[in-house]
Amino acid sequence: MPAADAQSDHDAPAAVLEAPAPTAPTRTPQQRPSPAEEARTIVSATTTGTLATLSADGGPWASMVGFATLPDGRPVLMVSTLAEHGRNLERDQRASLSVVAPGREHARDPLDHGRLTLAGVAERATGSDADRAHEAYVAAFPPAGLFSTFGDFSTWVLRVERVRWVGGYGRMDSVTADGYARAEPDPVLPRARGAVRHLNEDHADALLAMTQVLGGHPDATSARCERADRYGLDLSAETPRGRASVRIGFEAALDGAEGLRAATVALARLAREGAAG
Amino acid sequence: MPAADAQSDHDAPAAVLEAPAPTAPTRTPQQRPSPAEEARTIVSATTTGTLATLSADGGPWASMVGFATLPDGRPVLMVSTLAEHGRNLERDQRASLSVVAPGREHARDPLDHGRLTLAGVAERATGSDADRAHEAYVAAFPPAGLFSTFGDFSTWVLRVERVRWVGGYGRMDSVTADGYARAEPDPVLPRARGAVRHLNEDHADALLAMTQVLGGHPDATSARCERADRYGLDLSAETPRGRASVRIGFEAALDGAEGLRAATVALARLAREGAAG
Repeated sequence: MPAADAQSDHDAPAAVLEAPAPTAPTRTPQQRPSPAEEARTIVSATTTGTLATLSADGGPWASMVGFATLPDGRPVLMVSTLAEHGRNLERDQRASLSVVAPGREHARDPLDHGRLTLAGVAERATGSDADRAHEAYVAAFPPAGLFSTFGDFSTWVLRVERVRWVGGYGRMDSVTADGYARAEPDPVLPRARGAVRHLNEDHADALLAMTQVLGGHPDATSARCERADRYGLDLSAETPRGRASVRIGFEAALDGAEGLRAATVALARLAREGAAG
Repeated sequence: MPAADAQSDHDAPAAVLEAPAPTAPTRTPQQRPSPAEEARTIVSATTTGTLATLSADGGPWASMVGFATLPDGRPVLMVSTLAEHGRNLERDQRASLSVVAPGREHARDPLDHGRLTLAGVAERATGSDADRAHEAYVAAFPPAGLFSTFGDFSTWVLRVERVRWVGGYGRMDSVTADGYARAEPDPVLPRARGAVRHLNEDHADALLAMTQVLGGHPDATSARCERADRYGLDLSAETPRGRASVRIGFEAALDGAEGLRAATVALARLAREGAAG
């Protein structure tokens, strides 16, 4: 797994953070989205973030902005010099954009939730970038078709130099600018919320069987699905040894959310057969 | 109204931004929360925001943080030096916190939504502040009771020097540090979402009567409630002259959301009597 285990670096007794390890072999592929894919997925799934710029005195200034995303993951901003961040960018183009994955308002713990930071330099869109950037922003914010005619608005594209992704407690990593540009957003994750709810509401037995038979925790007493991505399901399971994080991978990566149902049914069957065998 | 009308500053023909003005006198108090009250209300209503700090090279760094709020509105942060923002604060204490009002994910236009920026200096909590800050943060994030025992975590309190509030398109203002510290969060606004929905679902006729009889728009054809605060209701109304913003004020400011029903019923009666008179 490419995500660094930052938990082990905490200046604390490791035991307090340790989740129970599997007591049996896991029987599905354990691939999951790479940090670069996680980062691109978060950026692609929303159109608002918080921009950090430098004020006249060199101090930091955080402010909410709308943004669109170019195909290589660069964010597009349209800002007014009536706003402090707009004046800041005119003076110093260094900028950082923080983006939080959708759904934080409904998260059980808002800190155990995906987000990322991009840092780099804001550049005025020029050449073919200019049209693409403008089109992308207006598609995300139709009223911007009007704003953009005002003389105080400018379109900027953030040239990404540094990427830091945090998936939640203990799941985080840095991503190279090149890795970020080349990664593909996960086609399943942002569209799977309904499917995840359906699994938890109607198929708790299947999730428990997957956990016991395929996920390496034969003593699990209940399991719920936390999320689905193109490579598999993240489950959390109650065991007599504590709450475990369980990865159940699909046989093959999915190309879209429409493959989720068949892939999940196949896993449920595999778990039933394994339990019977 | 204390909020500056920033729209008129746009480098654009004013007409494109103008909403229809009342064609009859408004018949209720027109007070609304001050920018300082709006700012305090947003900060009090949530526990996540985005922190801007300065990286080692002096560039800005934006990252999601949890925060709690002291009674004077100062945000409390608990950050780890394993995170870049934690290392940044150790080096340079200048910081800015951007906070977005809850509900943005469901807003019709996420840019027409309340948010604010605080900027100042992060100070290590000392003396009586230290206990209050720690207690406030752990109350907001119970797992922090555990984190705070790790050697890599520190508690910081943001000394607020500058406050910039944005209520949505064309509603924005700066607030003095003193005005921010002394203002009271609105006791109604964060708890009124259900009441607003109820008004729109079941009392559209009363909202239209308020708009026509009390709100200065006798030609309105429909009205919906956008929000409620301790001083009154913000409505948007369709008129043959375009969509109007209508303020309907309560007779007296409310002390809590429990007074909302009686105050709204009184306004509906006033509108009916005015229509009949």
